[in-house]
Parts: sequence; C-alpha cells; structure tokens
Amino acid sequence: MRIGVIGGTGKEGRGLALRWALAGHDVVIGSRDAERARAVAAELLPLTGGKLTGSDNGAALSGAEVVLLSVPYAAHAETLHGLKAELADRILIDITVPLQPPHVGQVHLPKGESAALEAQAILGPTAKVVAALHHVSSTQLLEPSKIIDCDVLLCGDDPQAKATVTALVVDLGLRGLDAGPLRNSIALESLTPVLLTLNKKYKSAGAGIRFTNIKVP
Amino acid sequence: MRIGVIGGTGKEGRGLALRWALAGHDVVIGSRDAERARAVAAELLPLTGGKLTGSDNGAALSGAEVVLLSVPYAAHAETLHGLKAELADRILIDITVPLQPPHVGQVHLPKGESAALEAQAILGPTAKVVAALHHVSSTQLLEPSKIIDCDVLLCGDDPQAKATVTALVVDLGLRGLDAGPLRNSIALESLTPVLLTLNKKYKSAGAGIRFTNIKVP
Repeated sequence: MRIGVIGGTGKEGRGLALRWALAGHDVVIGSRDAERARAVAAELLPLTGGKLTGSDNGAALSGAEVVLLSVPYAAHAETLHGLKAELADRILIDITVPLQPPHVGQVHLPKGESAALEAQAILGPTAKVVAALHHVSSTQLLEPSKIIDCDVLLCGDDPQAKATVTALVVDLGLRGLDAGPLRNSIALESLTPVLLTLNKKYKSAGAGIRFTNIKVP
Repeated sequence: MRIGVIGGTGKEGRGLALRWALAGHDVVIGSRDAERARAVAAELLPLTGGKLTGSDNGAALSGAEVVLLSVPYAAHAETLHGLKAELADRILIDITVPLQPPHVGQVHLPKGESAALEAQAILGPTAKVVAALHHVSSTQLLEPSKIIDCDVLLCGDDPQAKATVTALVVDLGLRGLDAGPLRNSIALESLTPVLLTLNKKYKSAGAGIRFTNIKVP
C-alpha cells in the first residue's frame, strides 16, 4: 500500500515510515522542506530494503491510499488547511497530541476538544479521519529488531477506514483495538501527557499501554 | 485506617469497601438511605472477618481519614454540595466518571472538564481531592480471591494525599502509578468510556489497563 507521511522527518513519523517500509509498503516521507525529506529517506533506506522516498508534503500525498499526519500541534491546523483539497476524501491517520510545551505532562484540551476532531472539522465530512498510534514510543519504532510492548487504540467514524488502519497497525507488529467513535480521540490524546508524566516520574525511556482481559478475534 | 465510602451501596463502592475491609481497614459504607447501607454492610461482612458497617453518608464520614466518593455523575455535584463542610480538609478519592447514559461508550467532557476538577472547585482548595480507581472492574473487586490484572493511575495536587491513596491502592493488591496533577483526571475519566467500548466490542467482562516499561521503586 502507498502511504504518505506528512511531517515524516520528526521522530514519530520517521519511526512509522521505517516500520511500514520494512513491512513492504511503499512509503513517501513528506516535509515542508523536500530536501530534508529526501535526506531522511536516504538515511532510513538502507535499514529497510524496501520502498522509501522523500518529497514535499503535497507530492507525498499524491496517490497515497493512506496519509499519516505527524506534525507538532502548533502546525496542525495550518498544515491541514494547506492540504485540504488533497485530503478531502482520503484516509487520514492523525497521531497529533495537543501538548502545550513546556507543560507536556499535563492534559491540554484544545478548542475543538481534540486534535483529531479539529482535523475532521477542517477537512469536512468526506475525509476519513482515524486517530491512532499516539502511545507508541518513537525510540522503539526506530529500533526495527525491537518488539514493542504496547497496544494501539484506534477511533474514527468510518468503519472501513478503521479496518484499513487496523491492518496497518498489525503490519507494525502491534495489536489494534477499536476504541469507538472519533470523539473518543479525546481519551487517546489525553493519555499521552499521562505517559510522559510516567516516563519522567519512573525514569522510563518509553512507557506503553496494554489492555487486559481483551481477546481480539 | 478508617475509610468512609459515600455511595457505598453501588457495585464499585461495595467492591472497594469489601477489599479494604479484607485488608484490615475500618470501613463505613455510606448511603443516603442508612437502612440500605446497613443491609449491604451486613451482606458483605461475613466475607471479610473485619470491620465493615453501614450508615448514612454524613455518619460514614465522621472520623474517616480517607473518604471515597462513588456516586453516579448525575448525583456528583449535589452530593458534594451537601457534604461540603464535612469534606473541607479531607482526603477525597473521587472515582466518578462523567458518563452520559445511554452513550456510556463515548467520552463526555463536563463543564468543569472533569468530575474531579469539579469536586475540587466545589469543595475549595483545602480539600485534598485524588482522582483514582476509575478502571478497576467492580465484578473483579467483588471476587476477593481474584487477582486483578490492572494498574491504578492516581492524580492530584497534594503529594501527601496521593501517597496515602497509593498505599490504599497497594492494599487492594494493585499497583498505583502517579499520573500527575489533578488536571490529568481528564485523561483518567475519559479512558473509562474507551474501556466500556472495548468490553462491548470484544465481549469482555472487564477490560483493564497495564502500563509497560515502568518499574515502580
């Protein structure tokens, strides 16, 4: 599957791009700075043996069946407004957490209640926004031999899009759990400051979550 | 320790009262209906061999070092206003989740952003509100031989109160994790609708949560 990663030069986008390329997907890392995207792709390519290229954000979307949005919250709305036409009927995985530096260990609710709900509002009802992958440590994604001890919660209002993204989560070697409608992205995004608090308090390099008493068929 | 449980005749309050009595604490189950509280205490007492009594909510608080608030969200503000004087400088564990029946699988943010923040606002700054224990299945609490596969997140703004409640969590046989300031109760409360969604979707009797890559000293 062709996957475009907007903001793919950051740690989380980079880690996911690497893992999906390793799983055989055709991944394009996008950035506002095409040169930088190409440099990151060239750096990761030897680790994958697969298809991994870099370009500006617009070109990264071209022909992509799924688009991952991985930008800091400060650039979230502006990036979406700029790519609105291209994203109108696309599956968009939004991993954005509305952190408020320097208080990244405290929950911050944005005006639209969650970044993913804001994305859906900006793009309109035909876009298929799925909120997911907020809790997977980028450090662990970037070590391809590492088995990541974390479940992935997904929420969204389009069941087909949620199924497509669940399959991509499985390709990362992770378990995807259906966490309900897009509105529940409030819970998923709010959990990240808690994980950052736990990391600091218990000196962990990357706390993860697992759900117990759940069997996925 | 003496623990008063406001709304202790509900499933969650009853389960926690039972487990704490088993751990040797002196637990008073409170209810608006003292007769009903006494009946529930009498029903649970043979399982504990400890101290477990019932009374109206006001008497349940008398002399309690820690008070647990376990009422439906619809009764949350009214209950707190009614007991405001008694709770003014007390440690209050608030396990309330602002669910909106019948849509209990969807996150609902109340006016004050979380029930626990609303509790603190009602009681004033001298009350020591700790939000915790939202994710522990009452069904499992009520089976005393059951080892519960769930971590407990705690948040609050008073470190001493948080430490006291953490010790009570350990007495339940569970691991307590410091999830930061009371503001982070938004995350803790929002996670409950996600767990209820998972229970329904994957036919679980009580999904729990565990944090990975965390070692508690």
